[in-house]
Amino acid sequence: MAENKADLYSLKLPEDLKKLSTGQCDDLCRQIRTLLIKTVSNNGGHLASNLGTVELTVALHRVFESPKDKIVWDVGHQAYTHKILTGRLDRFATLRKEGGISGFCRPDESEHDAFISGHSSNSISAALGIAYAKKLQGDDHHAIAVLGDGAMTGGLSYEGLNNAGKSETNIIVILNYNEMSISRNVGSMAKYLSQMRTKSSYLKTKTAVERMLDVTPVVGQPVKKVVRSSKNAFKNMLLHSTFFEDMGFEFIGPLDGHNIEELEAGLRAAKAMHKPVFIHVNTVKGKGYAPAEANPGEFHGVGSFEISTGNPDVVSSDSFSSVMGKELCRLARADKRICAVTAAMKYGTGLQYFAKNFPDRFFDVGIAEEHAVTFCGGLASAGMIPVFAVYSSFLQRGYDQLIHDLSIGGLHAVICVDRAGIVGSDGETHQGIFDISFLTSVPGTTIYSPSNYAELRLCLKKALLKDKAVSVVRYPRGRDLSVYGVDSVGADHLHINNGSDTLILTYGRLFDNVSAAAEKLAGENIKCDLLKLVKVFPFSEEIIEIVKGHSKVYCFEEAYRCGSLSEKLAAECGNVEIFAIEDYVHHGETADLLDELGLSAEKIYQLLKERLGNET
Amino acid sequence: MAENKADLYSLKLPEDLKKLSTGQCDDLCRQIRTLLIKTVSNNGGHLASNLGTVELTVALHRVFESPKDKIVWDVGHQAYTHKILTGRLDRFATLRKEGGISGFCRPDESEHDAFISGHSSNSISAALGIAYAKKLQGDDHHAIAVLGDGAMTGGLSYEGLNNAGKSETNIIVILNYNEMSISRNVGSMAKYLSQMRTKSSYLKTKTAVERMLDVTPVVGQPVKKVVRSSKNAFKNMLLHSTFFEDMGFEFIGPLDGHNIEELEAGLRAAKAMHKPVFIHVNTVKGKGYAPAEANPGEFHGVGSFEISTGNPDVVSSDSFSSVMGKELCRLARADKRICAVTAAMKYGTGLQYFAKNFPDRFFDVGIAEEHAVTFCGGLASAGMIPVFAVYSSFLQRGYDQLIHDLSIGGLHAVICVDRAGIVGSDGETHQGIFDISFLTSVPGTTIYSPSNYAELRLCLKKALLKDKAVSVVRYPRGRDLSVYGVDSVGADHLHINNGSDTLILTYGRLFDNVSAAAEKLAGENIKCDLLKLVKVFPFSEEIIEIVKGHSKVYCFEEAYRCGSLSEKLAAECGNVEIFAIEDYVHHGETADLLDELGLSAEKIYQLLKERLGNET
Repeated sequence: MAENKADLYSLKLPEDLKKLSTGQCDDLCRQIRTLLIKTVSNNGGHLASNLGTVELTVALHRVFESPKDKIVWDVGHQAYTHKILTGRLDRFATLRKEGGISGFCRPDESEHDAFISGHSSNSISAALGIAYAKKLQGDDHHAIAVLGDGAMTGGLSYEGLNNAGKSETNIIVILNYNEMSISRNVGSMAKYLSQMRTKSSYLKTKTAVERMLDVTPVVGQPVKKVVRSSKNAFKNMLLHSTFFEDMGFEFIGPLDGHNIEELEAGLRAAKAMHKPVFIHVNTVKGKGYAPAEANPGEFHGVGSFEISTGNPDVVSSDSFSSVMGKELCRLARADKRICAVTAAMKYGTGLQYFAKNFPDRFFDVGIAEEHAVTFCGGLASAGMIPVFAVYSSFLQRGYDQLIHDLSIGGLHAVICVDRAGIVGSDGETHQGIFDISFLTSVPGTTIYSPSNYAELRLCLKKALLKDKAVSVVRYPRGRDLSVYGVDSVGADHLHINNGSDTLILTYGRLFDNVSAAAEKLAGENIKCDLLKLVKVFPFSEEIIEIVKGHSKVYCFEEAYRCGSLSEKLAAECGNVEIFAIEDYVHHGETADLLDELGLSAEKIYQLLKERLGNET
Repeated sequence: MAENKADLYSLKLPEDLKKLSTGQCDDLCRQIRTLLIKTVSNNGGHLASNLGTVELTVALHRVFESPKDKIVWDVGHQAYTHKILTGRLDRFATLRKEGGISGFCRPDESEHDAFISGHSSNSISAALGIAYAKKLQGDDHHAIAVLGDGAMTGGLSYEGLNNAGKSETNIIVILNYNEMSISRNVGSMAKYLSQMRTKSSYLKTKTAVERMLDVTPVVGQPVKKVVRSSKNAFKNMLLHSTFFEDMGFEFIGPLDGHNIEELEAGLRAAKAMHKPVFIHVNTVKGKGYAPAEANPGEFHGVGSFEISTGNPDVVSSDSFSSVMGKELCRLARADKRICAVTAAMKYGTGLQYFAKNFPDRFFDVGIAEEHAVTFCGGLASAGMIPVFAVYSSFLQRGYDQLIHDLSIGGLHAVICVDRAGIVGSDGETHQGIFDISFLTSVPGTTIYSPSNYAELRLCLKKALLKDKAVSVVRYPRGRDLSVYGVDSVGADHLHINNGSDTLILTYGRLFDNVSAAAEKLAGENIKCDLLKLVKVFPFSEEIIEIVKGHSKVYCFEEAYRCGSLSEKLAAECGNVEIFAIEDYVHHGETADLLDELGLSAEKIYQLLKERLGNET
């Protein structure tokens, strides 16, 4: 008798998953894939990684009982299916949209999101905290960390493994091995895992797993039966993997990440052990969507696209990232000391041009921002000029190294801070709003914040060839949308003196919004002076003089208020009113978010009109 | 014929080392040990670790050519012999004294100090940067990282290994394994290394090392001869060690770290390979000084002591650390949710009491501050109240995790920031002057800075049981030296209103200096109001009112100026003059350093006298 087909929309999830047959699960997975492709093609997001974890997620929710068992998704690039299966199916079309569900895991969005995700490699440490808490509370449920091979390049993962392996807790670490982290994976561990993926393994006569199952009541024997009856690939899961076993884990794998039955048997075995278990799962990134399988890198994080072809709706033109990358090539051609470093973001930071032209001087160190900064210190100490291009929010990982391994010794390195300011749909964890605060607290640091491509090129050159110590060039995500000219080119600031007693001060892309507001005000006969900072820190005497030369200064800043430049100027000059970011910023369109924050042209206009309108 | 005895003081170092016989080297090592014990017994410093690396250092300088070959010492706790052998013998008596040589490696002190040290686990990454620079420059010399097993618990070491192993550079990583990091070592890697130390290894018929030596011109055959003729323990160095070989390194070891001949042969073999090599060296911490061998933990970092007995000159009484540790026990007895976490600083942070009383709720995670914070996030998310006690300068490592894994999710954890402010003899890398800047940029964080033991106890309780989100209690190194009462107990601030228009604002231990200065001024009929903050951030409305209620406010702050509380108050209130720390602070006695910074009672008095004297 033919089974009923499973229907994603009529099931009570996640509970009903456990009632389905394997065949029904496979059918469900097909429906989920269709939904993933449709939604991401509309909204943008992470596609290839999510297509790879459909079966794994279904198997997890069949074997474990979320939210009593806690599933911690690393980074969250693979958690869309988890969202669909845990109460967010009806809202899935709102993915990454303002007011909609987040592209990452958020405990405030669902009790099934056990921990926040967004920054890589935190899942093992967080799951271990949960596992210990459960142990102390006498709760026998599991904490499960799911991470990709990219996350395994981060030191935090290693610190987590080092502490988890010896713990006597119910922690399960699942490596979702898809041999394709954001940039192609790097480092010895990647090579090690790659060997493991295809290892011609041996089957011990009586493995640790089997011994465990022998003494496990109720589920032990059924699981063992499944193990015995399954095909060879699954038997191979019982191979001995020295590294993770040396780290104290029971090891299961490699499992076929697209075979529900095999995944379930492995997860049940792990669950029955009640001790730290490491599971290696092989998945195919982009599984089930031909364009993504063919080009998983391109379909890692995407904008909207056409499903039939996989072609993006908007062909990306230049961006601050690509302009930086190309200019760096030009400079590196003339100066052989220049090296470029990325922490697994070759394409995101525009360093693909450098990598192609100067492979010997290009270093992708994996998701390892700490190492990246200290490595730059080593290069600089030996006469090179290292450039570390990194997203603002990820540079937070390198704060200590900026101080200890660069600044104290006065070593010269350039940090290109990409995604500075509001980044849009990626939300809280990715907004680049803290770099001003923490970089200004690193003694001797120079910071540039160009507002257009021309300034970016000039700032990069100054940072590389003129400055000493740590020099930072920060710029926003995306394209140069400026329309208000490039007059400051070559200078460290641009002062537009209209003879007003009121000064509007800003920097970066906000200059365009401020200029538009000032123009509108001028049309209403409200005059303001403008000051755009290009070299934004430290302040030159001239900047201080200009600020002090006005009776009232309004500072608009796309950065967190505490530690902002406005705050420093206010402390120094006294006559400054601060308009900066007061709290974490949720996800949405960048323009909308800037408007909500009072930093759009219209909001700046309204504010100044209110403040200045009565004075004229 | 009897050789001449080597005389430490008549040799031209490090060059002459290469001319000595092994017997002369052993004799030299005895002289160095005597000098180490004498100097540290006078000046305080790190003893046990330095006594363990005497032979290793001599062997390194015999085999390699510093500064052309670059030796990067991790942390620097083991680099005293290196300092003695590289031009700092005559100044060694000034170790850690103001104006004297640093207790850590500093490139500005000697060209033989290849990279800065102080914070753990940076040596592999820094050496790899140097090794790549040399490769790009066509320089065949080596970069050598020397680190202890404690440093191997840090994720940065793993990131370094992950990138170094696959590099085609002349990098050598030497693990100085003494089975005794600062606190007893923790984690799976420690267990793994411990097994390796005593591994009954096998000798391959033709190892990778031998194959390499066969094709190495000039030195290959002589080194191979030494290998063949040496005793079994050395032959064992050719054992296969899966983890490091899997990470891409050639592996040599374990070597007897107190046998010059064996060390030299191993180092020469590594040098001849011209590829990444990992050397495992077994050493005895405290070697050659009975009290230190017996209690290496106590002789890790010490004050001055009596050589004949090993007894400290000053018996340590209570400190802010121990008071915190004991109070935490009291609170944890009443509330089973309270957990304590340390990153390898159980004794330094006063958590030994907690560890003894509540072993199930105590976690020493190794030198892994990132993991420590995220692990706290996991614990907190599952209903526990984690307390992470950590030195201010080391918490810099956890900045991203404070934001991402605690603050964004509004999770409640308490961070006890020990060694906040000036720490004295440990110098630049250890001064706790940045925590105010970076912690105030973490949204939702509450910060307390008690100025005496009574306040510390109350702040800790509030932070644990009253506050939400991240709550920080910061306090200085050492003892409570305050003499100006405890009047603020229970309140978030103490306002001493003398009816003056001038307010002196401060917090933490500086309150005592300010009080002394104010008393002296009062004796000269110069009246000031005083405001001591206890809950220092965020500012209450009352604080802002008090500040605004004075025409002039002088803020004294033991913190870096950029991002300081004074700066924020100045930005908010306008009438504030800031006296904070403007740059890195070198090593010396804490009282002397505070005086140099203008923060002693006398300097504060002089400054205020100058400012206020003319007004009266």
